[in-house]
Amino acid sequence: LVGARSSQGFGYGIPLKLKEQGWADRTYLVNPRGGQMHGMPVYRSVDLVPDPVDLAVVIVPAPAVPEVLVQIGRRGIGHVIVQSAGFAETGPEGKALQAEVNKAAKQWGLRVIGPNCVGVVNTGNRLATAEVMPEAMTPGRVAVIAQSGVFGHNLIDRFNMQHVFVSKVVTLGNRMDVSESEMLEYFRGDPTTGLIVMYLEGAADGRLLVDTLKRVTREKPVLVLKSGRTSVGRAATASHTGSMSGHDALYESLFAQTGTIRAASLQELVDLAQVFATQPLPRGNRVGILTGSGSMGALAADAAVDAGLRVPPLSAMTEAKVRNGAPVWMNAKNPLDVGPSGMFPTAFKALMEDPGIDMVLAIVSTPYAVLRTVDPRQLMAQWYFGDLEAIRKLAGHKPLLLSVVSHQRLAEIIEGQVQDRIPVFTCPEVPAQALAALWRYGRYKEGRDSGRRICV
Amino acid sequence: LVGARSSQGFGYGIPLKLKEQGWADRTYLVNPRGGQMHGMPVYRSVDLVPDPVDLAVVIVPAPAVPEVLVQIGRRGIGHVIVQSAGFAETGPEGKALQAEVNKAAKQWGLRVIGPNCVGVVNTGNRLATAEVMPEAMTPGRVAVIAQSGVFGHNLIDRFNMQHVFVSKVVTLGNRMDVSESEMLEYFRGDPTTGLIVMYLEGAADGRLLVDTLKRVTREKPVLVLKSGRTSVGRAATASHTGSMSGHDALYESLFAQTGTIRAASLQELVDLAQVFATQPLPRGNRVGILTGSGSMGALAADAAVDAGLRVPPLSAMTEAKVRNGAPVWMNAKNPLDVGPSGMFPTAFKALMEDPGIDMVLAIVSTPYAVLRTVDPRQLMAQWYFGDLEAIRKLAGHKPLLLSVVSHQRLAEIIEGQVQDRIPVFTCPEVPAQALAALWRYGRYKEGRDSGRRICV
Repeated sequence: LVGARSSQGFGYGIPLKLKEQGWADRTYLVNPRGGQMHGMPVYRSVDLVPDPVDLAVVIVPAPAVPEVLVQIGRRGIGHVIVQSAGFAETGPEGKALQAEVNKAAKQWGLRVIGPNCVGVVNTGNRLATAEVMPEAMTPGRVAVIAQSGVFGHNLIDRFNMQHVFVSKVVTLGNRMDVSESEMLEYFRGDPTTGLIVMYLEGAADGRLLVDTLKRVTREKPVLVLKSGRTSVGRAATASHTGSMSGHDALYESLFAQTGTIRAASLQELVDLAQVFATQPLPRGNRVGILTGSGSMGALAADAAVDAGLRVPPLSAMTEAKVRNGAPVWMNAKNPLDVGPSGMFPTAFKALMEDPGIDMVLAIVSTPYAVLRTVDPRQLMAQWYFGDLEAIRKLAGHKPLLLSVVSHQRLAEIIEGQVQDRIPVFTCPEVPAQALAALWRYGRYKEGRDSGRRICV
Repeated sequence: LVGARSSQGFGYGIPLKLKEQGWADRTYLVNPRGGQMHGMPVYRSVDLVPDPVDLAVVIVPAPAVPEVLVQIGRRGIGHVIVQSAGFAETGPEGKALQAEVNKAAKQWGLRVIGPNCVGVVNTGNRLATAEVMPEAMTPGRVAVIAQSGVFGHNLIDRFNMQHVFVSKVVTLGNRMDVSESEMLEYFRGDPTTGLIVMYLEGAADGRLLVDTLKRVTREKPVLVLKSGRTSVGRAATASHTGSMSGHDALYESLFAQTGTIRAASLQELVDLAQVFATQPLPRGNRVGILTGSGSMGALAADAAVDAGLRVPPLSAMTEAKVRNGAPVWMNAKNPLDVGPSGMFPTAFKALMEDPGIDMVLAIVSTPYAVLRTVDPRQLMAQWYFGDLEAIRKLAGHKPLLLSVVSHQRLAEIIEGQVQDRIPVFTCPEVPAQALAALWRYGRYKEGRDSGRRICV
């Protein structure tokens, strides 16, 4: 860690985090002042660090970076993360400085991530060159490629809240050397990664990105959030990561043609990540909607149909199952509004078993006024879903999403019980749209559909 | 309360709730069995209830409702809420039964809300004919018109979580007599109501709704969520409240022409309610975006511009204020990305004071990894916003929205400190879109724009 600092400020906590994650014996701090820091020895220069060294993390001020890269090259370290900011994103002077850094890197054959980033996280070997919270080090199957360091941080904070866990994270910053395409290709081959989530301000190389995405999306879903849709947004990204981005229509077409799933907002990106990380691709587009509220059923049906799904009539078998024991006022249709009949678990199982239904959205709408009369320790997902695990096993090939549209406290209770296996939403529309995205991506992957936007 | 029941089931808790809200001495329970219930006397028939009675709430099974209405009419009670379900929403037989109820109502000159609803809530006099939670009885300025009872419940649960408080709620059910247009007109003249939120499955009378909305939206904003956008959704609403709804394009045009703000989803409805309930209408469409993360600034700018706002360059005065004391790497532009410079409060005040800025969106993006090193009791909105109240007073005419895109816990801390005065979002796009809706509605109200969708 070149530029280790003893005072609060950017990068101060990195050695502490590395220690916390068990890297103390393999972390070497470099600062011309020498001495000790966080109980670790500080080397006065890169030359003095003992072998072997696989990676140099640079956090010195921007003007000092070119010289530090020469030292790193001379020392025989091949891989570098430059976290320092103050390069191409700041204007002509910064661009010139970045060119110098690049020259040094090329001269010594270095591979460089950054500058203007916070580096990488690998939950498998617990390496993090950024100060992420320990909870975020839980290994998962989602890889993250973010141009912006803060974005990467914010995304991981949100992932954590929604039970999405990562395999690896890379923040690319100004992409002087390593680009999003190279990372996509890497994650394609990475066995710990099943899904790739990317935040992009502009393609480093548009043609290369098209070719890469085409290859990657045949194997793993790629979700992308692209900013710079408008000229004001593009100007903002130029000041942020020095990205040059073309008109948005080009990106729209690029993502549609390569089967890349473009989210319209940060929240949609997180929601889709949770769904794609946990649910199988459906075999068809027939959704069964179960609800205790006719209004929520109608809203979910609207969203599903708008997004290209079908909400078919119930099969005779399913209708018979839900009619049996139901009060007369209950309509046995799809969306299936069971009201306060107590038929929710029966209807849920029937829909999951129905071969004419490819995916299920179950919406809980019990008012909080009713719930508050119940001991929360006794309030169980089981009330609504019966033996959820057993039913899931029966229909493991069907995507299943839950929604709890009443009070947040019920959503939290149910979420706590289904954990990271089944996403729990709090509105009727978003899960319907997410199911449609699963289906559209599946179609693309089978080669049955292309050139269409996957998210509606 | 006609049909008061001593066993668990629909309506069981209503007398308990009325007692809880101080209505015990003015609540009369009717059930042929007589005796006592919840420590209150039970009258064997409507005739035996002592004077005066202003309102009858009917929860007897559907087949008994026509006869009960005759008794109510004979007894001289003029206003009725029929909560019982099993009428037009269930098919031809139910329709015939509803016609019978209607005949009795007309014969005795009764005004009826319902059937198939949960009645009304009035936070001013603490009357609730539904089992809502006590927290939801906090008086506010938002009136709710919902066709569906469960929808009304769920909406109030969500309002509560987002610090939105209601004046009155009415659930209309099958709208045998009282319609949404009549309620809109009532809320137009209701001094406790400043904003009307409506959930609609189909207009009871389209022409009347157009005329009414035109009148109401000149005085108070009306937010609407309309289901039945698709044929499947329309079929679902027919089974739910017996609503007959035309093609969605008609509603789109109806809402656009009457300055009605149509939300695209349940969450958007709640978000907009929070914004319209707390923020003034802006004088123009120039938004200042403040952020600690360039990516969030770019995403917010994209959403703002897409929705019709301008993100103008900073004025010389504001630029000077934020340059003074800022590190060299900081860009003083709009969106204004102050990074970790510590300039957030200064920049916030400068934007609020700038006469060239009509509204402000401030996005906090501090990673949780940084926050967790701080004692949460010391973590203050003040860190970011300085003396928020004083600055608000300086620029009371400017809408202000906050967004905390990092960990939920920071959002909760800041939300707890700004309470119900300033909405706190957790993403960059939604508040930008909500600011645009405020501006578009303001334009409509001034007569400068009409026939355009207010939400983008």
